[in-house]
Amino acid sequence: MARIYERVALIGLGLIASSMAHAMRRGGLAGEIVGTARSVETREIASEIGFCDRVVDSATEAVQGADLVVLAMPIGAMEPVALEIGPHLAKGATITDVGSVKRAVVEAVGPHLPDHVDFIPGHPLAGTEHSGPRSGFAELFENRFTILVPDENANTEAVARLTRLWEGMGAKVETMEVDHHDLVLAVTSHTPHLIAYTMVGVADDLRRVTDSEVIKYSAAGFRDFTRIAASDPTMWRDVFLNNKEATLEILGRFTEELFALQRAIRTGDGDHLFDYFTHTRAIRRGIIEAGQDTDAPDFGRIGKKS
Amino acid sequence: MARIYERVALIGLGLIASSMAHAMRRGGLAGEIVGTARSVETREIASEIGFCDRVVDSATEAVQGADLVVLAMPIGAMEPVALEIGPHLAKGATITDVGSVKRAVVEAVGPHLPDHVDFIPGHPLAGTEHSGPRSGFAELFENRFTILVPDENANTEAVARLTRLWEGMGAKVETMEVDHHDLVLAVTSHTPHLIAYTMVGVADDLRRVTDSEVIKYSAAGFRDFTRIAASDPTMWRDVFLNNKEATLEILGRFTEELFALQRAIRTGDGDHLFDYFTHTRAIRRGIIEAGQDTDAPDFGRIGKKS
Repeated sequence: MARIYERVALIGLGLIASSMAHAMRRGGLAGEIVGTARSVETREIASEIGFCDRVVDSATEAVQGADLVVLAMPIGAMEPVALEIGPHLAKGATITDVGSVKRAVVEAVGPHLPDHVDFIPGHPLAGTEHSGPRSGFAELFENRFTILVPDENANTEAVARLTRLWEGMGAKVETMEVDHHDLVLAVTSHTPHLIAYTMVGVADDLRRVTDSEVIKYSAAGFRDFTRIAASDPTMWRDVFLNNKEATLEILGRFTEELFALQRAIRTGDGDHLFDYFTHTRAIRRGIIEAGQDTDAPDFGRIGKKS
Repeated sequence: MARIYERVALIGLGLIASSMAHAMRRGGLAGEIVGTARSVETREIASEIGFCDRVVDSATEAVQGADLVVLAMPIGAMEPVALEIGPHLAKGATITDVGSVKRAVVEAVGPHLPDHVDFIPGHPLAGTEHSGPRSGFAELFENRFTILVPDENANTEAVARLTRLWEGMGAKVETMEVDHHDLVLAVTSHTPHLIAYTMVGVADDLRRVTDSEVIKYSAAGFRDFTRIAASDPTMWRDVFLNNKEATLEILGRFTEELFALQRAIRTGDGDHLFDYFTHTRAIRRGIIEAGQDTDAPDFGRIGKKS
């Protein structure tokens, strides 16, 4: 595959950035990969693993001469970094990010960037419950969507080039309007995560059922929630603080539906429950048909003695 | 492995019963397996697949001379079947079931059984989102728990024999008090299922996000909910109608916690969110350590292009 950027600067070296480095190397997509992270420990681990060509001590140093800069830290940390690197960005460079919320990133980062760069915020819909520089792997983005949210005046050539990079890493790329992205993700990701966190917290807090019982019998449904609820706490705190409005809206709808089902249970309205459950089953079928999950029973866990 | 029962009658031939048949055959655990189901279509499919030695037209016929009878239909259908088979049960036979709620089964089935049989209700914590006679496979119970809830006067020999059968099918067997079972399962299974159903319903119902967007971007967390929410509607309707009290109690706790997190989002209380998410992450670790799930990222989905 052809080289797409000459020098890529990764700022933040967690799951996403380290996976990008592995994927760019595999595809020969970047001339040089320079990485940095705030924590000394993270930088040391990244150096040891060697997925960057160079690991440097500061964001300012990392962006020197880079034609692509990727902000890959929690959303709450983006504004100070944008302030720091703004004056050091190369002319014609593309700046992107991988944050799960986009309006907040646009507002935190955009104003601090010089006019001579292209800012194209992005969000790879990929991840695992693991985090940190050791958790990255080249296949993370394969067959997954990356959403770019360029503004209406964006440089179309810069957008096309960033698209080629993501495609080279295996992703399917879509563009979307910023606020619509945040609403769609509130439905498909943010609210489900909050609910999973809540359920796991409730289970742990219940006095009459012991922790060991919860863990022992988790296979009955609960453990899928625990996987979701094992995701990085800092990242998720920042998601909820920065996608407040859309998350609260969807939560409101969720509570309304939940109360209706709760009432059906209390009053013994079996038809309501049956109809609701039949309807949701059809949605699953749509996801399988769209190729967004495997139809293998129980995620293919069956048969593997874990 | 040694034969444990001479003749096993399976009443209901869905995922659980068909998996039991496959597993009993694999282990040589039953002399003869006789099956029946209410629906002609199900009986025909079962005959075609051939996981039973005989498929018969009625429960009465199925239980003739059986030393083990397994009630494997939705909970709401159990009482009439118990009434029907009661007079035809062989002396010394063991009657068990595979329902997800146990107090309701004890009350629906127990009074209709003669004194000369042993009634040992049970619940295999195993399943997939698929249902019906075609969905069964011999490995379903491997490394999963089956909970038996014999009453205090139960015949210990009969309990030991049924335990050996489940162990022969690969399960780990535990006994538990009836009501405690229902509470534990309300936490680890019933409430998580209701919540997943609710979230999937909300996503589908939202006007400003299209169905195709929900499906397309489901990989970000939502699709794990859809898998749970694809389970058999009849079975789950009966679970909620029959484990009303415990489910409503856990739902009450859930709503309370959810409101607290919602408030933290609204007021921007990042510390509350961070602490909560850090705590729930530790619970996931417990589940991995207890061998109840794989630590492979994203359930091992990664790399398999589904």
